[in-house]
Amino acid sequence: MKNKIGRQNVLYPMPATILGTKVGDKVNFANIGHVGILNAIEPYLLSVSLSKTHLSNRGIADHRGFSINIMSQVQIEELDFAGTTTGHKTDKSRLFDTFTGELKTVPIIRDCPLSMECRLFDTYVTATTNIYIGEVVATYADEAVLTNGKIDLQKVRPVLFDMNGLQYWSIGEPLGKCWK
Amino acid sequence: MKNKIGRQNVLYPMPATILGTKVGDKVNFANIGHVGILNAIEPYLLSVSLSKTHLSNRGIADHRGFSINIMSQVQIEELDFAGTTTGHKTDKSRLFDTFTGELKTVPIIRDCPLSMECRLFDTYVTATTNIYIGEVVATYADEAVLTNGKIDLQKVRPVLFDMNGLQYWSIGEPLGKCWK
Repeated sequence: MKNKIGRQNVLYPMPATILGTKVGDKVNFANIGHVGILNAIEPYLLSVSLSKTHLSNRGIADHRGFSINIMSQVQIEELDFAGTTTGHKTDKSRLFDTFTGELKTVPIIRDCPLSMECRLFDTYVTATTNIYIGEVVATYADEAVLTNGKIDLQKVRPVLFDMNGLQYWSIGEPLGKCWK
Repeated sequence: MKNKIGRQNVLYPMPATILGTKVGDKVNFANIGHVGILNAIEPYLLSVSLSKTHLSNRGIADHRGFSINIMSQVQIEELDFAGTTTGHKTDKSRLFDTFTGELKTVPIIRDCPLSMECRLFDTYVTATTNIYIGEVVATYADEAVLTNGKIDLQKVRPVLFDMNGLQYWSIGEPLGKCWK
């Protein structure tokens, strides 16, 4: 039988990501684990949830775009550093090397296995949180994570985020094909 | 260097879930991998994205609520069955045993390790998709997945969903504590 454990969000693990924005003339990074897939066909719409206190809000307001960068487990120290320091006090611009793509003011992390460049499509606001809805305008994949041109999660080795346990996790084994 | 691979959603893996709704006087289940965390503090807001063709849309419209049930890897056959059959043609009401909680018309799956009962908070609509924003009103955990009263993902053994590879995955090893 199940225990009633109050009201809790238990939708974990989620992919651990770094949000890339430009604030003023500097790039900024935030560790974001609260993400979502809103529209799974074109236009691809993703959500990133940001407390209103984050510096990244200013970058998104100014440039109306951001990147979502999937982190590999070899990058876990940088990932966690980005999540424990605030851009208000610490210049995080040198934490990752970046390039720009279609949107000229959105920094994309060069060393991540996968990155999505997003145009701000809409913003959904709650009392504490700005939920940014991004439309994917371009996706970038490291050659090393592709098998026959397709993304191979065993090569990506994504970091998974679990706020209930305050823990990062690796991905395990394939369990089988979907929609058999 | 990164390859530009067009516009793709690569935000995977996501937790594989079963959406529980009541349609008419029968319960119905859908396999939903396109979910999100929108508000990570109270009110806890989650999103589930449903193609407008799904029968579950009718259940949510009628009863303004749904459950999100986290699937354990021992349940992978039922999970995949719910994803390959349509409630329009197949009665899925006996696939899982259910109970009701605070909202009297939302079926919650008894044998899932974790379930969230959600009140419909808002709906965000795109051309093809209804994005339901649910507010968590109660969470249920199987005793067997708790360690000292806390949710232990190693006991939950959640199924992870990857639409790029059309594959289900297990969770791997803990990589370390967040926010050190």
